[in-house]
Amino acid sequence: MGSDETQQLLLSEPRDHSHVNEKTDLLQRRRTRRGRISDTETNLLQEQNVSLQTPLDSQSIDETQEAELNFKPVFLFLAAYLGTGTLCFFLASYQIQGIKTNGFLDALYFCVVTMTTVGYGDLVPNSTIAKLLACLYVFTGMALGGLILSKAADYVVEKQEVYLVKAICKAEKLGLEEVSKELVTKKSKYKFLLSASTFVVLMIVGTAFLYFVEKLDFVDAFYCVCSTVTTLGYGDKSFSTAIGRTFAVFWILSSTICLAQCFAYLADFYTEDRQRSLAKMVLTRKFSPRDLEAADLDGDKAVSAAEFVLYKLKEMGKINQEDVTAVMELFRKLDYDQSGTLTEADFRNSEV
Amino acid sequence: MGSDETQQLLLSEPRDHSHVNEKTDLLQRRRTRRGRISDTETNLLQEQNVSLQTPLDSQSIDETQEAELNFKPVFLFLAAYLGTGTLCFFLASYQIQGIKTNGFLDALYFCVVTMTTVGYGDLVPNSTIAKLLACLYVFTGMALGGLILSKAADYVVEKQEVYLVKAICKAEKLGLEEVSKELVTKKSKYKFLLSASTFVVLMIVGTAFLYFVEKLDFVDAFYCVCSTVTTLGYGDKSFSTAIGRTFAVFWILSSTICLAQCFAYLADFYTEDRQRSLAKMVLTRKFSPRDLEAADLDGDKAVSAAEFVLYKLKEMGKINQEDVTAVMELFRKLDYDQSGTLTEADFRNSEV
Repeated sequence: MGSDETQQLLLSEPRDHSHVNEKTDLLQRRRTRRGRISDTETNLLQEQNVSLQTPLDSQSIDETQEAELNFKPVFLFLAAYLGTGTLCFFLASYQIQGIKTNGFLDALYFCVVTMTTVGYGDLVPNSTIAKLLACLYVFTGMALGGLILSKAADYVVEKQEVYLVKAICKAEKLGLEEVSKELVTKKSKYKFLLSASTFVVLMIVGTAFLYFVEKLDFVDAFYCVCSTVTTLGYGDKSFSTAIGRTFAVFWILSSTICLAQCFAYLADFYTEDRQRSLAKMVLTRKFSPRDLEAADLDGDKAVSAAEFVLYKLKEMGKINQEDVTAVMELFRKLDYDQSGTLTEADFRNSEV
Repeated sequence: MGSDETQQLLLSEPRDHSHVNEKTDLLQRRRTRRGRISDTETNLLQEQNVSLQTPLDSQSIDETQEAELNFKPVFLFLAAYLGTGTLCFFLASYQIQGIKTNGFLDALYFCVVTMTTVGYGDLVPNSTIAKLLACLYVFTGMALGGLILSKAADYVVEKQEVYLVKAICKAEKLGLEEVSKELVTKKSKYKFLLSASTFVVLMIVGTAFLYFVEKLDFVDAFYCVCSTVTTLGYGDKSFSTAIGRTFAVFWILSSTICLAQCFAYLADFYTEDRQRSLAKMVLTRKFSPRDLEAADLDGDKAVSAAEFVLYKLKEMGKINQEDVTAVMELFRKLDYDQSGTLTEADFRNSEV
């Protein structure tokens, strides 16, 4: 695949490792926020074979694999969820009142309108069982949308980003290195811009559709679009034809997820921006003799490279005393001869 | 305040620093996720005076201050936002159609129903200006809800948690240390349980209110509650009396935010749980001679404590090569005599 080629080029860039690493760094943080750390676990297992000095290759492979592994089950789960819902509400269609078109389509449309919490109210349950079923459906739909669909959306945006690189390269005749550097240091900015522009396109498509197909006037079409994408769904204007509802099933799902992602990326962008400036502040701050004393972990009046790195990373808020304390306990156990360093002698002694 | 006393006790516990630090660790991660890192910045400035060896006190003060500083503007902003909206829709009340009670109350109720994206549709704009105003209002409301109100909710849950500690201490006659240890290592679990139980109470209160005051039957009351808290808002059942709408203004705001927080804490709990087991895995994994070589940053065939900590934190995914590379560059600049360590001699030489 062409996109994979570009990604490989970006990730296997020979010199400028710091920027590429920043990319994986940001990715890693993002994943953690979304509750995914399986990549780090995979790395751990891989490290039995691969040295820690080359985390780049293992992570770039891992990244693509992980995304593809995640996408398929998410899609299947969504299909199963919508399928079950559609079947239930189709069988109970005489317990749903409102503007009807085609039995099966209405059930699917009702499911999408419910799970995205748009809830126009153009179709509403009117029996006890149908009402309770709708309650159950919306709660599970919220969980599905919030915790699972955002993953799939994130994957799509990641893929799109690779095409963006290609486009910029061709249009501005920039070196691949320059573009990738820009793209990598401001990853969440580009993710936000991509999702925001996709969102604008979806808004335009939706408005045009309602204007031309559902024959709403322009303001009403725009009003219905806004009311839908934000999941407000007043319901005074909605999709009332069979064609309209077929379109709505896909359009509502994609536009509501897209807007939610926009907000998520905006928050990420803000966070990363603050983290970057904090790191810069820590790195430019003058290192005083007092810092020297504080950074000296083993009390030998000299600060080694590793001690310095630990001290600065603590200042940046990336690690804290608790992290260090837990590992230090293990170190003391492993340091068999209590020399303050681990050497091969410690291994020989511990095995005797 | 009584709650502050308990918090002080928890935070100034003399021995068990590791657990208290884990608390601040989790807090820090949570804040970062929410886009707040001002505490770390404040710490940085404080560290000019306070040594890094005592991050505990500065953070505990900082934490309370930050929460209080954040809560007030959020509340004022919410009041200003709702006030402006209410005024606009009150002035345009003849452009709103539907079930009316009291002009001012209806406008406020309409604002809350719109900003939370519940959108019953029992009151809808019927002029171009009112429609566009509603579109603007719901977009800004989404941003306000997602990015700002969650902070305030988080603050309330933090406060509640302190009362929970007191209650458990009294009920089970456990030592403060035991309870705080449990509370601290499973912070997000308790946050989830607290918000989930608050949510259940809000569900019961809402259902009872709709049953007794709005005279809906039991299933309809429950159905309307579910439809509201999830922001679905079909609108076939809603608040139609003046008393009902007064109640709805407070109840809709709190219950929708509460449910959203529940989902957020659940996701946090999952992430923290994975992170904890990953850290445990890294700490129990056998340290082999090959690891010894990989961890040896300065190539002196011995792994110092700081090198060991860096290596293990990298394995846990807490830091990455990029973080280390950036700081190492600075180290090389500061190491004036290129001895591989920073000593007072480096300072003297650089000042000459």
